[in-house]
Amino acid sequence: MNTADLGLPVDVPSTALFTDHYELTMLQAALAGGTADRRSVFEVFTRRLPEGRRYGVVAGTGRVLDAVENFRFDADVLGFLREQRVVDDRTLEWLSGYRFSGDVWGYPEGEVYFPGSPVLRVEGSFAECVLLETVILSILNHDSAIAAAASRMSSAAGDRPLIEMGARRTHELAAVAASRAAYVGGFASTSDLAAGFRYGIPTVGTSAHAFTLLHDSERDAFRAQVKSLGGGTTLLVDTYDVAEAVRTAVEVAGPELGAVRIDSGDLLLVAHRVRQQLDELGATRTKIVVTSDLDEYAIASLAAAPVDAYGVGTQLVTGSGHPTSSMVYKLVARADSADPKAPLTPVAKRSSSGKTSVGGRKWAARRVDEHGTAQAEVVGTGPVPQELADRQLLVKLVEDGRVLSREPLDVVRDRHATARANLPLSATQLSRGEPVLPTEYV
Amino acid sequence: MNTADLGLPVDVPSTALFTDHYELTMLQAALAGGTADRRSVFEVFTRRLPEGRRYGVVAGTGRVLDAVENFRFDADVLGFLREQRVVDDRTLEWLSGYRFSGDVWGYPEGEVYFPGSPVLRVEGSFAECVLLETVILSILNHDSAIAAAASRMSSAAGDRPLIEMGARRTHELAAVAASRAAYVGGFASTSDLAAGFRYGIPTVGTSAHAFTLLHDSERDAFRAQVKSLGGGTTLLVDTYDVAEAVRTAVEVAGPELGAVRIDSGDLLLVAHRVRQQLDELGATRTKIVVTSDLDEYAIASLAAAPVDAYGVGTQLVTGSGHPTSSMVYKLVARADSADPKAPLTPVAKRSSSGKTSVGGRKWAARRVDEHGTAQAEVVGTGPVPQELADRQLLVKLVEDGRVLSREPLDVVRDRHATARANLPLSATQLSRGEPVLPTEYV
Repeated sequence: MNTADLGLPVDVPSTALFTDHYELTMLQAALAGGTADRRSVFEVFTRRLPEGRRYGVVAGTGRVLDAVENFRFDADVLGFLREQRVVDDRTLEWLSGYRFSGDVWGYPEGEVYFPGSPVLRVEGSFAECVLLETVILSILNHDSAIAAAASRMSSAAGDRPLIEMGARRTHELAAVAASRAAYVGGFASTSDLAAGFRYGIPTVGTSAHAFTLLHDSERDAFRAQVKSLGGGTTLLVDTYDVAEAVRTAVEVAGPELGAVRIDSGDLLLVAHRVRQQLDELGATRTKIVVTSDLDEYAIASLAAAPVDAYGVGTQLVTGSGHPTSSMVYKLVARADSADPKAPLTPVAKRSSSGKTSVGGRKWAARRVDEHGTAQAEVVGTGPVPQELADRQLLVKLVEDGRVLSREPLDVVRDRHATARANLPLSATQLSRGEPVLPTEYV
Repeated sequence: MNTADLGLPVDVPSTALFTDHYELTMLQAALAGGTADRRSVFEVFTRRLPEGRRYGVVAGTGRVLDAVENFRFDADVLGFLREQRVVDDRTLEWLSGYRFSGDVWGYPEGEVYFPGSPVLRVEGSFAECVLLETVILSILNHDSAIAAAASRMSSAAGDRPLIEMGARRTHELAAVAASRAAYVGGFASTSDLAAGFRYGIPTVGTSAHAFTLLHDSERDAFRAQVKSLGGGTTLLVDTYDVAEAVRTAVEVAGPELGAVRIDSGDLLLVAHRVRQQLDELGATRTKIVVTSDLDEYAIASLAAAPVDAYGVGTQLVTGSGHPTSSMVYKLVARADSADPKAPLTPVAKRSSSGKTSVGGRKWAARRVDEHGTAQAEVVGTGPVPQELADRQLLVKLVEDGRVLSREPLDVVRDRHATARANLPLSATQLSRGEPVLPTEYV
């Protein structure tokens, strides 16, 4: 199907083109050379966490399943590849029937991960697996980066809700995925209507400075907003003078005013002053929402301030200093043929460069102490030790090309909260440190 | 139109939902209060460049025009907004007929910008303009950040071509926009097939380590690749031992081998060794492509190395440390009614917070010296001084809701090269500094 009539800012007819050119040329050469159908195992992992981070968060798995299912080469795509001579006719013919028919295993979405954790494993023929590299990495690298930042922020915020409001700071569709990942990481809601539409995440928002400036006075603006949206609305009080605005807000809305929002200034100081003023005006239940370039450190620094909710934008959608994860998709084992009984040979790059990896099809398990607190990420290629058998992390997501199940986002969000809670307490320290669990290879 | 049948990883039926919840609640309150049709002027600008950067690059304008044109509320979207009670019935009714009917002015895409430059100006009723805030900022903030990084990299690379290969490090659709922005900033090609499909950017790529590991020997892999893709292909030589791989590569492909790629190690050292080895083997015209976490500094450090092309991934798509621009969309002037003759009143936030802005509908011009080198970014609200009349930067992009013209990407790319070349030479110093032009308000 051609999506040009959709008029989206970016028209791409299927997920099949979210692919690097070299995946297709490798496919062509492998088809010609007779190696394309060798049974292969690819794994997604990261060699290290972003500097100073103590754990990673797997996010995007649900989107990966959608992408794998919709990875098809239709007439438009094939026409483009033919016209641009990306690959030869034999390869185009092969692509026209493409449908992933292998298996995918992975860490359940929302789980935490560490260096070397095999967060996703893709098994099938070399040809069918190699093509999925780019789109799988795009999704996991982006979504996991946002979820990791979100997790740190939600940990810092404690019981206070976090609102994701970063759509304007990132690509318009990356923003939708970022809202999703933020929700996985513990955010409560989003400003992004597309995220509400696509993923059912609660959307919130009331007004910006432009609304106040549109009116002849701040009082007129507040009146118009309260009249239309009700006294439970959130009034933005920092367009002119905060103290005056708070007074006007309570006069206009009454002491039942829902909330005020502060978007600038020294938030710690201003929040205290505004709380005191609201209380003096009898608006003791009016909440205070703060928004202004917040990150996990700013959130933590406001822990003792009378703040009821945080809105986070830029730092969330840019991963708070780490906008991407460094996950890679590597061939770790392959057979000499398509025969399912042919033995798998572990393979790995081994140049003297630091970019080496561990070959072999891996299992992973998390060892815990007697209190259930995680002690180590254990990764191995041989048989799984008895005591770790029921602690294994990889679950089957796709079998013979069929997606086995899809999870509601709330299940994923709860899983992340549980996984984080089971880490040693120092996992949620914001200060830089080593990964909170060691990775042991057995 | 419902796009669910497309099966895209993200289904959004039009650009209208790339919008923050509060734009719609502001609209509702303004409609109810009778201020929605006040003639308004919104401007996009940034208060500062990312720290140490000397100029910004306007990118994404073409995508903004598409987004504005396709900003419509169809039945699915309206149904969602009704069901979620985002706004009331009157507002839904108004939205159902929405079509932007105002004017848009902007810096031509590819132009450079500085703090305070009014890179885009949107004029119309408050209601029709306020809704566009989020999607316009999403596009410009993302694309301009990538283009700025690309521009620094292409400046550092000089005549050597740059290949964009960061798709796997960012959201799958952000990657397509990033390829486009990289091309604007001076990149030559991309690995991303979707960017080739959507924007006609040349795509390139040959093989990854997985292809070598698939085979029983490196020689087998090289043979298969050369046989299928021809001797002009690029062989990846760092899977095992680089020197051995280079020897094998020339043996297999002959001295007419197109190129070798090095993806790890000390690139400066390895490139020199490989060049010497290639020359000794008679492969004097075989090129060397390097790829491995390159940024503008690494590219500059390889200026004296025998490198023929650079592949750049992570650092490009993450804006080389600055993944977003800090552009804002602010109401700067408005009338008391819809009357086109009603005078515009400049407006601006003025709380004591540092987030203040300059009110009024602005023009901008770049003052140049007698050699044509830029001297200052001049921004004003009154009449344009005679000597700057033909140096004005804003051009009309949309008139009465109609997009006036669309530009081929090559025109945009050339414009950026010219604009950068006309800046003082210190603009292209990679070291941190102040904006290379001062912004003067008159």
